[in-house]
Amino acid sequence: MNAARLTPIPAASSHPTYPAVDIATLRAWHPYDIAESLERAEMSPLDIIEVLLRIGNHKALDAFQHLGIETQQACLEAGNTQTMLRFIENMDPDDRVDLLKKVDTDIREAMMPLIAQAERNEIRRLWHYAEGTAGAVMTTEYAFFPAAITVANALERLRLQAPDKETIYYIYITDADRHLQGMISLRRLIMSKPQTALADVMQTNVIAVRHDMQVEAVAEIISKYDFLALPVVDGEDRLLGIITVDDVIDIIRAENTEDFQRISAVVPFEEQYFKRPLTRLFWNRFCWLAILLFTSILSTAMMEWNLALLQQMVALAFFIPMVTGTCGNAGTQSATMVVRALALGEVFPRDYWRVFYRELLMGLALGLSLGFMAYFRVLLQDHNVMIGFIVAVALLATLLTANLAGALIPLVLRRLNLDPALTAGPFIATIIDAVGITIYFQIAVLLIKIF
Amino acid sequence: MNAARLTPIPAASSHPTYPAVDIATLRAWHPYDIAESLERAEMSPLDIIEVLLRIGNHKALDAFQHLGIETQQACLEAGNTQTMLRFIENMDPDDRVDLLKKVDTDIREAMMPLIAQAERNEIRRLWHYAEGTAGAVMTTEYAFFPAAITVANALERLRLQAPDKETIYYIYITDADRHLQGMISLRRLIMSKPQTALADVMQTNVIAVRHDMQVEAVAEIISKYDFLALPVVDGEDRLLGIITVDDVIDIIRAENTEDFQRISAVVPFEEQYFKRPLTRLFWNRFCWLAILLFTSILSTAMMEWNLALLQQMVALAFFIPMVTGTCGNAGTQSATMVVRALALGEVFPRDYWRVFYRELLMGLALGLSLGFMAYFRVLLQDHNVMIGFIVAVALLATLLTANLAGALIPLVLRRLNLDPALTAGPFIATIIDAVGITIYFQIAVLLIKIF
Repeated sequence: MNAARLTPIPAASSHPTYPAVDIATLRAWHPYDIAESLERAEMSPLDIIEVLLRIGNHKALDAFQHLGIETQQACLEAGNTQTMLRFIENMDPDDRVDLLKKVDTDIREAMMPLIAQAERNEIRRLWHYAEGTAGAVMTTEYAFFPAAITVANALERLRLQAPDKETIYYIYITDADRHLQGMISLRRLIMSKPQTALADVMQTNVIAVRHDMQVEAVAEIISKYDFLALPVVDGEDRLLGIITVDDVIDIIRAENTEDFQRISAVVPFEEQYFKRPLTRLFWNRFCWLAILLFTSILSTAMMEWNLALLQQMVALAFFIPMVTGTCGNAGTQSATMVVRALALGEVFPRDYWRVFYRELLMGLALGLSLGFMAYFRVLLQDHNVMIGFIVAVALLATLLTANLAGALIPLVLRRLNLDPALTAGPFIATIIDAVGITIYFQIAVLLIKIF
Repeated sequence: MNAARLTPIPAASSHPTYPAVDIATLRAWHPYDIAESLERAEMSPLDIIEVLLRIGNHKALDAFQHLGIETQQACLEAGNTQTMLRFIENMDPDDRVDLLKKVDTDIREAMMPLIAQAERNEIRRLWHYAEGTAGAVMTTEYAFFPAAITVANALERLRLQAPDKETIYYIYITDADRHLQGMISLRRLIMSKPQTALADVMQTNVIAVRHDMQVEAVAEIISKYDFLALPVVDGEDRLLGIITVDDVIDIIRAENTEDFQRISAVVPFEEQYFKRPLTRLFWNRFCWLAILLFTSILSTAMMEWNLALLQQMVALAFFIPMVTGTCGNAGTQSATMVVRALALGEVFPRDYWRVFYRELLMGLALGLSLGFMAYFRVLLQDHNVMIGFIVAVALLATLLTANLAGALIPLVLRRLNLDPALTAGPFIATIIDAVGITIYFQIAVLLIKIF
């Protein structure tokens, strides 16, 4: 026997695109890689279907599942109904419902009667779960047995059912009405004596989630307890489906993308970068930027208000970007740390007092040291002790405010059940700008009056 | 038989902390929850050890593993060597090495001779793998068999080995020198005929990674192919260990935290929020903010340069925060989208031309529409057509620049093997501020000359 041929992983950035690859090569690839290369080749939907049909094995059916949902939709709307039926029937139940919800109503209604009875019933069952809930991402292809059968019997049945199940590593024990009674891992099952009843070896202490739980919370539970799957039940503890760990990874990634986009004031997009329609993206970005532009009215108003002072001491204007910029950065720092700590469960809203104390201390330390630096920086450039003093004190006061606001606003948002990630965004930064300029001029007026 | 007792998941935010919970209650909890409540109670290391000893079952040993590494270290340095030995020996090999690397040298040297021979050899084997590589996070507790044994024999051996293995759902086939020859999933194994040799049912097309691969790349492979585990090999394809999917979830989370921190100019911290030492955090934040403060010298210099113009038309200063703020936001938007698309493999550096074209179009559309809005905004407040015109044109030019810079700089950084996430950070924003102010005044001077 030869040594195993360790499959070289196609380096993502050097992915050959379809025209350069022949069908025989594609046939040897993992379905995920087939899908990725089809996506990147930017072929027409009909060409994609053509290539998948020419590959012609089960991998081609699986590759369809790995295509982006917009590509799937385009294929479904362009392709022959009978051909597409095979792809549709092979899909995971939850992905299939997502796709059918997206597709043109006429096409869906033409296709539904042709879908096999069992799959059709499943589609109906999954149809009403709201997006973003456990019910909408669960799969119904799980292994379940009654408690009365023996371990040997369960293993025998598993052998037959295995090809149709998403996972057989966790087996669920239900009564005749599908009430969840327990679970047993395949590891435990093969370690148990063959003639024992499942009832005697199963674990009855099962962590399950309701179908209406948010997927982010489900992901949290699976990742914290290192589960491979989590059962989903209805209000009466009847088993509805399971959520597997690979879905959880996708959920965590999508959640992080959302947070990143929210931080930069882009309403989250589902599509891949190059697939996002430019007009929708334009409106999305335009609206945010327009709101931010109008928020900056505050900063402008503050300067107009102090027109006389500015005309008298125009150098004051020079240091506004420095003060607002530095304080905006400090606020973003504390906001990001608290937002992330909230997401990871390291901090809770009730910790506000501890967070306040910590960030007050930090804000004072940063404000004093940076204020000191700013003072000398102004002297170096401007030789004006008064302006140096104004800038330093304004920096200290603004930084303290920004640092505390950045840290505490996420806690308030979380308490109000809003997304704390909004804080780290430009909206707050724009407000901090205005507050910074206000403080700046207040302190300028005050100090000029005193001296 | 009663319906299963579905374990209520302790709501994270209402986690009772230790003093409020008696030992009997803790005994019923999942090790993860025990660890979490001990962490939150902020007990001394000796008290933590005391509680774990009083719980006294295997869950207590596992709970130690779920404590943060700083807490583990504190316990190890405070506790009795003999007691701590039990906790150490129960740890996963990779976590154990991480902890021993962190702990005081004297304590490590006192403990090493007491650790059982097998574990000690393992520690030596894992010691030299660099942090952040596959070798450093892999576990060596995997199931492996020779190719010649039968399916029935393999199942029999698995039954005995299962308790000591991290996972038995993927089984690896190796020769006498541990060269990886193939793998078989437990699902496939129990579906195979008992008398077949493993050689005939195993999959020889195995995706494996080298021990020096970065963990982020490993996470990418596992999540893309939906694997439960991935084998790690040396330069000669000898099996060294495996990386399991639950580790991958932790890697993805850590990676995202790092990105978030980098975006907000905080050097990534490993510790939990409340555990970060204030002095180190201060220096970390101070250095970044000081650098940014000095970068803003550019903005100030630009304004001084145009002192005469500003004194003549002081209202020009009013709209600087609006122009730089809006353009900074637009740049952050495009940067975040491209950074995320790079991370998810939707965009590659060689796509620069497509990205350029897309963001040029978008920048023009946004610049024209927001410039138009800004024009009316200035008229409303200032009744000065000239300033309105200057602001609108400056906004268009700066936004176009910021949008393109935000989108293209991440591609350049990636090409240079630097982290693209740096782009979305305040460093670039500060530079955009200066560039924006420069463009603003250039256009003001130009337009005033023309009219």
